[in-house]
Amino acid sequence: MIINGQVGELIHAKDRGFTYGDGVFRSMLLHEGKINLWPQHFNKLKHDCISLGINCPSIKILAAELDQLIADQPEGVAKIVITRGIGTRGYSPISESNSTRVISISPSPQYPDFFSTNGVSIYICHLRLGHQPRLAGIKHLNRLENVLAAAEWQDPGIAEGLLLDEEGHIIEGTRSNLFLVKNGNLYTPDLSRCGVAGLQRDRVLEWATQNGVSTKITNLFLDDLLAADEAFMVNSVIGLWPIREMSGFKRDSFPISHLIQNWLNNVLP
Amino acid sequence: MIINGQVGELIHAKDRGFTYGDGVFRSMLLHEGKINLWPQHFNKLKHDCISLGINCPSIKILAAELDQLIADQPEGVAKIVITRGIGTRGYSPISESNSTRVISISPSPQYPDFFSTNGVSIYICHLRLGHQPRLAGIKHLNRLENVLAAAEWQDPGIAEGLLLDEEGHIIEGTRSNLFLVKNGNLYTPDLSRCGVAGLQRDRVLEWATQNGVSTKITNLFLDDLLAADEAFMVNSVIGLWPIREMSGFKRDSFPISHLIQNWLNNVLP
Repeated sequence: MIINGQVGELIHAKDRGFTYGDGVFRSMLLHEGKINLWPQHFNKLKHDCISLGINCPSIKILAAELDQLIADQPEGVAKIVITRGIGTRGYSPISESNSTRVISISPSPQYPDFFSTNGVSIYICHLRLGHQPRLAGIKHLNRLENVLAAAEWQDPGIAEGLLLDEEGHIIEGTRSNLFLVKNGNLYTPDLSRCGVAGLQRDRVLEWATQNGVSTKITNLFLDDLLAADEAFMVNSVIGLWPIREMSGFKRDSFPISHLIQNWLNNVLP
Repeated sequence: MIINGQVGELIHAKDRGFTYGDGVFRSMLLHEGKINLWPQHFNKLKHDCISLGINCPSIKILAAELDQLIADQPEGVAKIVITRGIGTRGYSPISESNSTRVISISPSPQYPDFFSTNGVSIYICHLRLGHQPRLAGIKHLNRLENVLAAAEWQDPGIAEGLLLDEEGHIIEGTRSNLFLVKNGNLYTPDLSRCGVAGLQRDRVLEWATQNGVSTKITNLFLDDLLAADEAFMVNSVIGLWPIREMSGFKRDSFPISHLIQNWLNNVLP
């Protein structure tokens, strides 16, 4: 771990990331010493920092610190956390404060290969996401909803939990974005009120544009998922998992999902 | 500061309080070496920990660690943060993990005396609180809404910001609870969908019960505030501030507010 340029694992207990979750983060796949889609990840990080008024470190500083860790750990999941920095008591953010940066690399989680090929079982979480347009889309450190949702199931056969919002729209997985395929068209939930807009979501949308496939970003309900030809979840670490099974839903053929999966895994941006 | 029993200021960057805001806290007024309403504060802390499935340290451990700091700093604001502890990657909470406890004392914020006597000017925040019944009432570490709301004004003449929810209900201040007085009755917002249920709010409700004053915990709108005879805000550090001025609202007489204020400040629970 490198914290503000120094090797170490400790942060100040008055850091606003700790006191208020006042920060953002990214998890990125690291393979053969390279971070997959690094420039795009940095752009997302910077975008999220700007949304919260947090000073984002330069790409040069972050890349140098990542490289320092990658030299010893060329495989795994790299994570960057940026917080607003150390604060005094009180919610009001102090604009001139130095942000805190925490860079780390963890071993990749090990998932069975059939998650990608044959698809996964998912669980419909009871917790409903609240609406907060001001935070929607941002990968921020206020993640209690995800924590509580992930606590709802322990069965290791369940790969992911599906999150709906308070109005019953399907929004995302606890750590992934969701797509539906219906009659050759793509559908993905509108994330303007809640949810995290992940990088792989952007890439699937890019695939669709490149291949002339119609995509709708819209309000979707559970019934839309149940009626879909295929459904899949994406994130930067798992890649793409087709959904094989969910309450009231069972599919065993994923031609479009595998086409997109192949593109995500093999096409260099 | 005392962290897990050791004097120090640093926590692990993998602490779930830092990575996900996965924890709760309390701010408590400390005067002449005593924490005001300590048993009640501990009960709230424990209640909030239980709501999130976090192991709450015993009152004995926390009191001993507080006493250790109070010996050197008998005046100020004492703060306790409890997080779910150090975690591995991933949202899923590990139930057997040891929680982290951070105890600190800061100097009391200095507010002009007339805030309590003549009342304060408040600002109506643009940010609207999202609904999340699962987290409503809890003083948890996911406080980005409060941070963004507090960033909306810099004028030091504005003492507090009023927060409405997405449906236009008045809910609370950025760091306080709200009461209205109308025809001798008390009204305070329902906090079942958002907001933090502070200890002073409970005490005002207790005052009302003891004094046979009717209290309604209900949906309240800005128009209800504008039509109120008196309105005031409470928290454990500020005590009670009558609201003197807000857009469309001006009052200069606060008989009920001062009656309750006197009781809050002087009656031992």
